[in-house]
Amino acid sequence: MKIAIYGYGNLGRGVEAAVNNAYDMELVGIFTRRAPEEVKSVLGTPVYSAKDILDFKDKVDALIICGGSATDLPKMTPALAEHFNVIDSFDTHAKIGEHFENTDAAAKRGGKVAVISVGWDPGMFSLARIYSYCILPEGKSNTFWGRGVSQGHSDAIRRIEGVLDARQYTVPIEETLNKVRNGDTTDFTARELHKRECYVVAEEGADKARIEKEIKEMPNYFADYDTTVTFITAEEMKANHSALPHGGFVIRTGTTGSGEMKHSIEYSLKLDSNPEFTGSVLTAFARAAVKLNARGEMGCKTAFDIAPADLSPLSGEELRHTML
Amino acid sequence: MKIAIYGYGNLGRGVEAAVNNAYDMELVGIFTRRAPEEVKSVLGTPVYSAKDILDFKDKVDALIICGGSATDLPKMTPALAEHFNVIDSFDTHAKIGEHFENTDAAAKRGGKVAVISVGWDPGMFSLARIYSYCILPEGKSNTFWGRGVSQGHSDAIRRIEGVLDARQYTVPIEETLNKVRNGDTTDFTARELHKRECYVVAEEGADKARIEKEIKEMPNYFADYDTTVTFITAEEMKANHSALPHGGFVIRTGTTGSGEMKHSIEYSLKLDSNPEFTGSVLTAFARAAVKLNARGEMGCKTAFDIAPADLSPLSGEELRHTML
Repeated sequence: MKIAIYGYGNLGRGVEAAVNNAYDMELVGIFTRRAPEEVKSVLGTPVYSAKDILDFKDKVDALIICGGSATDLPKMTPALAEHFNVIDSFDTHAKIGEHFENTDAAAKRGGKVAVISVGWDPGMFSLARIYSYCILPEGKSNTFWGRGVSQGHSDAIRRIEGVLDARQYTVPIEETLNKVRNGDTTDFTARELHKRECYVVAEEGADKARIEKEIKEMPNYFADYDTTVTFITAEEMKANHSALPHGGFVIRTGTTGSGEMKHSIEYSLKLDSNPEFTGSVLTAFARAAVKLNARGEMGCKTAFDIAPADLSPLSGEELRHTML
Repeated sequence: MKIAIYGYGNLGRGVEAAVNNAYDMELVGIFTRRAPEEVKSVLGTPVYSAKDILDFKDKVDALIICGGSATDLPKMTPALAEHFNVIDSFDTHAKIGEHFENTDAAAKRGGKVAVISVGWDPGMFSLARIYSYCILPEGKSNTFWGRGVSQGHSDAIRRIEGVLDARQYTVPIEETLNKVRNGDTTDFTARELHKRECYVVAEEGADKARIEKEIKEMPNYFADYDTTVTFITAEEMKANHSALPHGGFVIRTGTTGSGEMKHSIEYSLKLDSNPEFTGSVLTAFARAAVKLNARGEMGCKTAFDIAPADLSPLSGEELRHTML
């Protein structure tokens, strides 16, 4: 399978590593909107200009799009889905419906398969939610994120005057996690579910009290949570907060029969590197996109629409023998 | 969807409860090899003789077969798959290949869909294994079972002379579980992974020392494990060991990129009632069998071959909106 990467930031590098590790895949190239000669690939993959992508229409079986959900993917994915089997990690939950429709129409016009919203959430956590809902319909699901770095919340802090750099960790509240595990079906508040830890590098002479107040009172991002703000030096930031760990828990508890028998289903991830893991998930779904299109399927799909066997390079017989 | 149940023991009762709770399903009947008038259904479902099953060929969308894996299912599932969409919980891992081939041929002859080996292991645990393998190919998976009742091991004890009743709990070794969670990739021995707790009701005057020795030295079942044997009264057995709880853990740890970034994926189940939960899983896959066959598919499938959306009564749009 010939795979290409469109966009080369943290996620693009994660995909490059994952494709490189897949024995049934070959990496054709990286496509960038920057000047190709200025982009150096970690593994020596050829780098091309995004403008030349259509020249590769017949040389690429699947294109993994590594752009941002805010402005890149809503345009890129439908535009490219007409010409390539594509995979993206679109994660703006509220706009998935619109993104799906746009991408579906484009992919159908081109006779291609597009798989959107693939990663760990949406993605693997969505799968944990759908399976546990289907096999335990009488129940309640909860998702906890973290402990991990939220890029969106870190960016929001960086936009405050006097802030040079920031890293925000989302942290599940252990006590609530245990209540949920034990079958408590309360509708917990945002504050009861997660807390937020912020590490901030301030400009010299900046008003730290004002920065802390602005963070803690920021609507949607922080006001509804117990938030701690710790000022650190740029050196401490580099030494202790350069990694992008993440993870979390999807827990469903419920009952069967007359309601006497209780069950709990828990799926959890603990990730050293959010972009490398997400890149690995995108790569597995790229394999599925190629297989589906080869069987004549077309249009937009999510993780919900793909049989797990299609993620694997192994045959049905091998899978039944080794994993069933 | 019109569903019928073939075989009415603990599992059949679990399926009856699950189908009864599914708003898109109707329970047509229970088919038994016993005299129908002697079988009383928990929820008042009509009971018919298994001999009359073919009279219901056009009245049933899917037949959930609730028989034993040792002798029932290898015959029943292929025989019925020619006439009905069928679902079973065949769990003899070593013979799944043969069972698959036999059932596949029969289902294809009849133009039906058969889904075999559905439950929690094989079934949900198999799904945890395949997804985690596909998204984290460089790594190692471990499955732990328990704490829960193993019917096979309980039966083995009951066959010993002087034993009136027995219940065997499989228990994961906590220390090994934590090592695996922390990325230890040692190939642990059976003894390091699980221990076995046996509760035995002996005949009056039976030689308890001999019974305990026979249990602990039984090859395959107990000899390779640390096993404890506790003699209890029939009253204690009834009061404390009537339930059939089970559960366990599928844990995969691995690395991405150059191997520096470590990740762990954990799926766990904690079940008050093994048969009720298994019945609930079978019911969700029965829905998928009907949907697949309605789209023109036929032949034998496992959980690996079924897209999660097909397990749900919700539309694709509803699923994307609520669970993605």
